[in-house]
Amino acid sequence: MVAADIDLQASSFPDPDDPVFALHRGGKMSISSTVELKDAHDLSLAYTPGVAQVCEAIASDPEMAHEYTWVSNTVAVITDGTAVLGLGDIGPAASMPVMEGKAILFKQFGGVDAIPVALDTTDVDEIVETVVRLAPTFGGINLEDISSPRCFEIERRLIERLDIPVFHDDQHGTAVVTLAALINAARLTDRFLEDLKIVISGAGAAGVAIMKILQSAGASRISVVDRAGVIHPGREDLNEVKRQIATETAGWARPGSISDALDGADVFIGVSGGTVPEESVAKMAPDAIVFAMANPTPEVHPDVAHRYARVVATGRSDFPNQINNVLVFPGIFRGALDVRATRISEGMKLAAATAIADLVGDDLSETYVIPSPFDPRVATAVARAVTDTARREGLARRPY
Amino acid sequence: MVAADIDLQASSFPDPDDPVFALHRGGKMSISSTVELKDAHDLSLAYTPGVAQVCEAIASDPEMAHEYTWVSNTVAVITDGTAVLGLGDIGPAASMPVMEGKAILFKQFGGVDAIPVALDTTDVDEIVETVVRLAPTFGGINLEDISSPRCFEIERRLIERLDIPVFHDDQHGTAVVTLAALINAARLTDRFLEDLKIVISGAGAAGVAIMKILQSAGASRISVVDRAGVIHPGREDLNEVKRQIATETAGWARPGSISDALDGADVFIGVSGGTVPEESVAKMAPDAIVFAMANPTPEVHPDVAHRYARVVATGRSDFPNQINNVLVFPGIFRGALDVRATRISEGMKLAAATAIADLVGDDLSETYVIPSPFDPRVATAVARAVTDTARREGLARRPY
Repeated sequence: MVAADIDLQASSFPDPDDPVFALHRGGKMSISSTVELKDAHDLSLAYTPGVAQVCEAIASDPEMAHEYTWVSNTVAVITDGTAVLGLGDIGPAASMPVMEGKAILFKQFGGVDAIPVALDTTDVDEIVETVVRLAPTFGGINLEDISSPRCFEIERRLIERLDIPVFHDDQHGTAVVTLAALINAARLTDRFLEDLKIVISGAGAAGVAIMKILQSAGASRISVVDRAGVIHPGREDLNEVKRQIATETAGWARPGSISDALDGADVFIGVSGGTVPEESVAKMAPDAIVFAMANPTPEVHPDVAHRYARVVATGRSDFPNQINNVLVFPGIFRGALDVRATRISEGMKLAAATAIADLVGDDLSETYVIPSPFDPRVATAVARAVTDTARREGLARRPY
Repeated sequence: MVAADIDLQASSFPDPDDPVFALHRGGKMSISSTVELKDAHDLSLAYTPGVAQVCEAIASDPEMAHEYTWVSNTVAVITDGTAVLGLGDIGPAASMPVMEGKAILFKQFGGVDAIPVALDTTDVDEIVETVVRLAPTFGGINLEDISSPRCFEIERRLIERLDIPVFHDDQHGTAVVTLAALINAARLTDRFLEDLKIVISGAGAAGVAIMKILQSAGASRISVVDRAGVIHPGREDLNEVKRQIATETAGWARPGSISDALDGADVFIGVSGGTVPEESVAKMAPDAIVFAMANPTPEVHPDVAHRYARVVATGRSDFPNQINNVLVFPGIFRGALDVRATRISEGMKLAAATAIADLVGDDLSETYVIPSPFDPRVATAVARAVTDTARREGLARRPY
């Protein structure tokens, strides 16, 4: 009965020769055994009866789980499918290709075994409870593509409830890599973060996290802009998250449009998906820095931005200076898992950004403020920054 | 601060040269990418921007998820750690070595990507809700080592709520492989299941499922025994599950001890972990069949049982006729995933048991009533039995 209901015509597209669909057929990941299972002896070690010894050891000393199970090397990539790429709320099933992509990047760059988990609920309480119940299975939790402002509360509550790292990559991965690029852009143009006049376009997960990390790094002249203009305490249309932005930027931000904000600004950081007119970019200060990170369409085309700005970066691989959070999350979790960090601290994020920026070294130029996503030094350097910071801050449960 | 709390002494045992612990160090499984990620072009196909096309295709036609994600080949191995091996309620963390073992057996024998999920709750409602929310991530659900009688309600409710296969292996895997062995033991001794007088010792997950599958296969002269003796409607100490057993066996079962039940019986099936005295086995009928499946200590030692029984089987690999559900679950899920079965039906289980029994063929003997766990034909034969049955019963969503 069920079989007869299938619309085979609908399943017959897309073009099987399309390289994207051909590559995705059957999914992008696989599980394998790391032990041999060729005969009864192997089975008696890896499964019954031998395995019972390992279970008993963990039952009597839970610390053993981190030495004798794969939990110590796993991260759940958890989504509810509400804010997937630029596609928005497409639901859990349709989000899986992105979650699998994320998982294989975790492995490729960080050696982390990541498992996509797409949840069939968008309720904050239910998501929190579900992840708490799953926690014994994983060494860390990477939240992914969960819409704002729910993502903030979910992350906050999970950090409170769990003693393993919880990291919303759309916030903090983006923030860390943006800070890394900005550290180098400021170096190149011989300025301090403290002095830069910065406009962030977008008050979602990424915008809020970028604001916070830039403040932690010393920047204070920050305006955050949404579709209605600069966010400031006088606006009456603000939700709780935006009211917090208004409070935290009140010392600098002044009412006005994005064009008003960009007039004389040193830095534009776009994480909005909107567009910025050329004449607004033209009004920025000399040696302007433009990070137009919306994907696939930057807020201002890099060729246009270059007419007025000294440093231009995007989220795209086909222009110089790709600001890509694959530079961040594999190394962050590699380091956190290696020392069994209890959480990802602000100090770890700042250290990670500095480590990424430092890798550019003497090659720093207008077209090279951030390493390539395929620079093999990055994940190791980020992991080292995280483990060193975790030890210094007393957040490392594996101190050796 | 946290680091200082660690008891390093406790972590320094067990002996690093112990082969079981050496094998388990770091866990037993790993995730890998099935696609190349060597440069920006690869990244643009497997991740942004290419992946967005696949997400959009699935969002517009959810059937696509089964072609273009790994969901179609995945099974969650879900436990709450309450009934792990013979160890009992050791909790989710300590259950992980078993769940990992199960997962690698799924891969080795069925090519199925199985993911251990150990839940930090033992509440039936919470387990059900959690698994329902996880469902978009998986092609099937294998429940594992969840204590009786909770396991029955959890499985029943999940089958009602989900349209993917849900299978409690401790029940049905054990039942299918036991039926397979009994079909051949009956063949060898030239008897019909309908005529066999059967005593099942143990009224937990396995005992109940064995009773049900034997009844489905035609057996009716069944007594089920727990610690207080034969389960029958006159007993006042029965929980709901045992009352159901009493009702369903009322036509045959008579009050008495296990010794009373074994007097003249043809078949003993032990899934209790208890012991059966030699003098009780001695009272069984000629050509008796003894399946003493408790692990690691059979209810009666095979050497003792052989004095009175013609066919003896155990759960152990170091005696002939190992009744091991690794013969069942990889092929069951391989078949169910291949046709996207909506559930695992009674018909599929019976077909699987028959397929396993048939592989023994002309080699049938007292010491060979069931194939070896390493017989490479088994999973394929079971999968074929499942897919054929699914198509016949209209439970196959992928009809080709």
